Amino acid sequence: MANPNLQLHDDGRLRHFLSVEGLSKQILTDILDTAESFTSVTDRSIKKVPILRGKTVANLFFEASTRTRATFELAAQRLSADILSLDIKTSSAVKGESLLDTLHNLEAMQIDMFVIRHQDSGSAHFFASHVHPGVSVLNAGDGQHAHPTQAMLDMFTIRRHKQQFEGLSVAIVGDIKHSRVARSQIHALNILNTGQVRVIAPPTLLPEHCETLGVQVYHDFDEGIRDVDVVIMLRLQKERMTGALLPSEKEYFRQYGLTAERIKLAKPDAIIMHPGPANRGIEIESSVMDGKQSVILQQVTFGIAVRMAVMSMIASQPGLDG
Amino acid sequence: MANPNLQLHDDGRLRHFLSVEGLSKQILTDILDTAESFTSVTDRSIKKVPILRGKTVANLFFEASTRTRATFELAAQRLSADILSLDIKTSSAVKGESLLDTLHNLEAMQIDMFVIRHQDSGSAHFFASHVHPGVSVLNAGDGQHAHPTQAMLDMFTIRRHKQQFEGLSVAIVGDIKHSRVARSQIHALNILNTGQVRVIAPPTLLPEHCETLGVQVYHDFDEGIRDVDVVIMLRLQKERMTGALLPSEKEYFRQYGLTAERIKLAKPDAIIMHPGPANRGIEIESSVMDGKQSVILQQVTFGIAVRMAVMSMIASQPGLDG
Amino acid sequence: MANPNLQLHDDGRLRHFLSVEGLSKQILTDILDTAESFTSVTDRSIKKVPILRGKTVANLFFEASTRTRATFELAAQRLSADILSLDIKTSSAVKGESLLDTLHNLEAMQIDMFVIRHQDSGSAHFFASHVHPGVSVLNAGDGQHAHPTQAMLDMFTIRRHKQQFEGLSVAIVGDIKHSRVARSQIHALNILNTGQVRVIAPPTLLPEHCETLGVQVYHDFDEGIRDVDVVIMLRLQKERMTGALLPSEKEYFRQYGLTAERIKLAKPDAIIMHPGPANRGIEIESSVMDGKQSVILQQVTFGIAVRMAVMSMIASQPGLDG
Repeated sequence: MANPNLQLHDDGRLRHFLSVEGLSKQILTDILDTAESFTSVTDRSIKKVPILRGKTVANLFFEASTRTRATFELAAQRLSADILSLDIKTSSAVKGESLLDTLHNLEAMQIDMFVIRHQDSGSAHFFASHVHPGVSVLNAGDGQHAHPTQAMLDMFTIRRHKQQFEGLSVAIVGDIKHSRVARSQIHALNILNTGQVRVIAPPTLLPEHCETLGVQVYHDFDEGIRDVDVVIMLRLQKERMTGALLPSEKEYFRQYGLTAERIKLAKPDAIIMHPGPANRGIEIESSVMDGKQSVILQQVTFGIAVRMAVMSMIASQPGLDG
Repeated sequence: MANPNLQLHDDGRLRHFLSVEGLSKQILTDILDTAESFTSVTDRSIKKVPILRGKTVANLFFEASTRTRATFELAAQRLSADILSLDIKTSSAVKGESLLDTLHNLEAMQIDMFVIRHQDSGSAHFFASHVHPGVSVLNAGDGQHAHPTQAMLDMFTIRRHKQQFEGLSVAIVGDIKHSRVARSQIHALNILNTGQVRVIAPPTLLPEHCETLGVQVYHDFDEGIRDVDVVIMLRLQKERMTGALLPSEKEYFRQYGLTAERIKLAKPDAIIMHPGPANRGIEIESSVMDGKQSVILQQVTFGIAVRMAVMSMIASQPGLDG
Repeated sequence: MANPNLQLHDDGRLRHFLSVEGLSKQILTDILDTAESFTSVTDRSIKKVPILRGKTVANLFFEASTRTRATFELAAQRLSADILSLDIKTSSAVKGESLLDTLHNLEAMQIDMFVIRHQDSGSAHFFASHVHPGVSVLNAGDGQHAHPTQAMLDMFTIRRHKQQFEGLSVAIVGDIKHSRVARSQIHALNILNTGQVRVIAPPTLLPEHCETLGVQVYHDFDEGIRDVDVVIMLRLQKERMTGALLPSEKEYFRQYGLTAERIKLAKPDAIIMHPGPANRGIEIESSVMDGKQSVILQQVTFGIAVRMAVMSMIASQPGLDG
């Protein structure tokens, strides 16, 4: 589904940010480097730069979200953009307008960037393939397909702690099958030449032909976590419990919950990540989530810098940014 | 209901914008001319002027709206205003406060402009007749009475394409009876000396004594559309279907839907307008809506410039604006 | 519950604003004096100062509110802050995240100030005791415990009209038992050395051991209102009617409603206050609410200046503000 040409201008600059898949190592590294420069902005007392002054960013959230929506909004504010937040469910959709008509109407309002979260896979690509030149689309999560800014803030967090991806061993644990986060992380880790990408899950929570994604598959957590540098836990969508995909919360925790015992099998300096919101006691033990190896809250903080980076790269003019 | 004195300062400047009715050709032309200057603002890369800096605009939407609400918000942002958006249904109304008390409390917050959409005809006038000197009210649609900024953005769109109103023939098609948009358009077109204003609708969708509004009435679309310069389609509120006002969607489309066939009866360079959101296949054929005579999305764009114009004229000081 | 150390930095500056209880007369007077300086900001044409530029204020309203939420938002805007407004009910709480996790995630977004309204008493203290250094919490009403900015805007209104608190007689009338507003007012009035603080209510609407709060208790309104300088009416929560706490609205009005007759028993220049929204005809006669002794709408206006004052004091740096 990812079309590199759709995401890039002819000169190779980023136009949309729809999926990690299809982007080069260079682009991903540029995002991480640019984000690095923005962490100093968000650390300082006056967290504001004029990069998007006079530009309008529209947040279109068709699915509920706190942290992604809030960090996109803060990123846009800190870049000095004007922001239009639309709760689509309660607005024009009520009047039966099609998605494409909604998009064209918003576009006619001279919106510069759309941040879109939608329950259907491919919706961000759909939007991007229909907007005018000069308008950009940022995917804030589409169905089970992709969540590229989440993956990039995860990469940023890993690089901050481990400096490089070569030689690293990273395990992603949980419901890989339904997770757009996992899908984007796997692409990003591979593009950045991560030593080894492991997925750990029961067979019912793995996509078909999972190996073709460039991962090593483990069904046993104790085996899969051994000597890894990074453990990424996924949120267990409790609604997957029904449908017999899973035995019980208690049994899930026993087999796939990250406990203080289990983390000892990883490298001593392994970091623990989670895209949030976490289910304490289901996929992760409470003490582990709050423990010293956990970098979960740092992920949230870095999320703002990474989203600022993507927005500013998209807003940059040809020839001015190398 | 329109009281010109209520809308104007003693020196003739605009104080409120409640209805087109009762305003002079000069004021309407000033709005169009001022909007013209703002289209250059919204076209440029940094879409921001400091005209309303330090002023507060409160958006009070008692009825759902996407495009009107969003364009008012963008207009206020691009004028650098502070914006307070209140969803009235979920707030103080819950506690049983009267509308007038709500207004007075908001006024006590030193709001400079109220943008009000309300299901009751006359509500904007009611608000305007109770606010203090220095506070202004903009009607964003009240019941079946008026929607003056919509009418003015329609006038702006017509003038852009046809240069002048004299000699033009304009047809408004659909549910005239329940449409605040149609009512405001008819007043605006007549004030601006439009050659001929036609309304085309079944008898059940026409207000009583319609002719007194200064229009020519047609029940037959093919007859009414003949040789017009502008066709304005209205949205069919599907809930009107019930109550036996209308036969069926299919039959409505056959009689009052704008098709590619039908548009050939108008002048070859006729433009097609719609306030949105349109029901494709009910009042307008999909291909016509997206066709080259359609200026429907331009209306949305011009809506921002027109709302900026009205807000800036209202905010202007005596003696400074001629 | 109020812990003065939690609210103050070691050097005595305000860090959080959780409750009036436990703060010194000096601090309360500083808030009133600082608010005085901000009334000139909000009176002038451009109502904007750069004190919170580049800072982020998050509004977390777990309970519905119009005037408190709007005035906090306007106060933050007029101090040039970035604002993140979260409707908690519709966001992460849906996903089952605990309050503390929500707080830590928001904190990771580098929020500088949290404005919190919550139905549970003690929630603001709970948040304040868990945030990092450099992050502040403002209580916008917690359960039946406290509503300190409301109390301070009431104090501001009283001082504006009566110049000083010494020698004044102030009566608070209505549902004292369930009112966080009354509780905060009583503390503030006593800290500021008000001559006499009276509460007037039926026994069922008084907290136990009410006298220990430093008030004189009256059950008879005519007796309690005699010769007071200030009458503060409380909103009657109609849901208290059930449970046999109260006879009927009509009977309540007869015994505890403020009428034009009754106000004659107070001092001739007595002012009438109400935190809003008022129930006309239940706790206050409509003509009294709109009469010349009423300062109810001034309270709303002063609320912005008082909230600006508290926010700016909290944002001030050590050594720069005396």
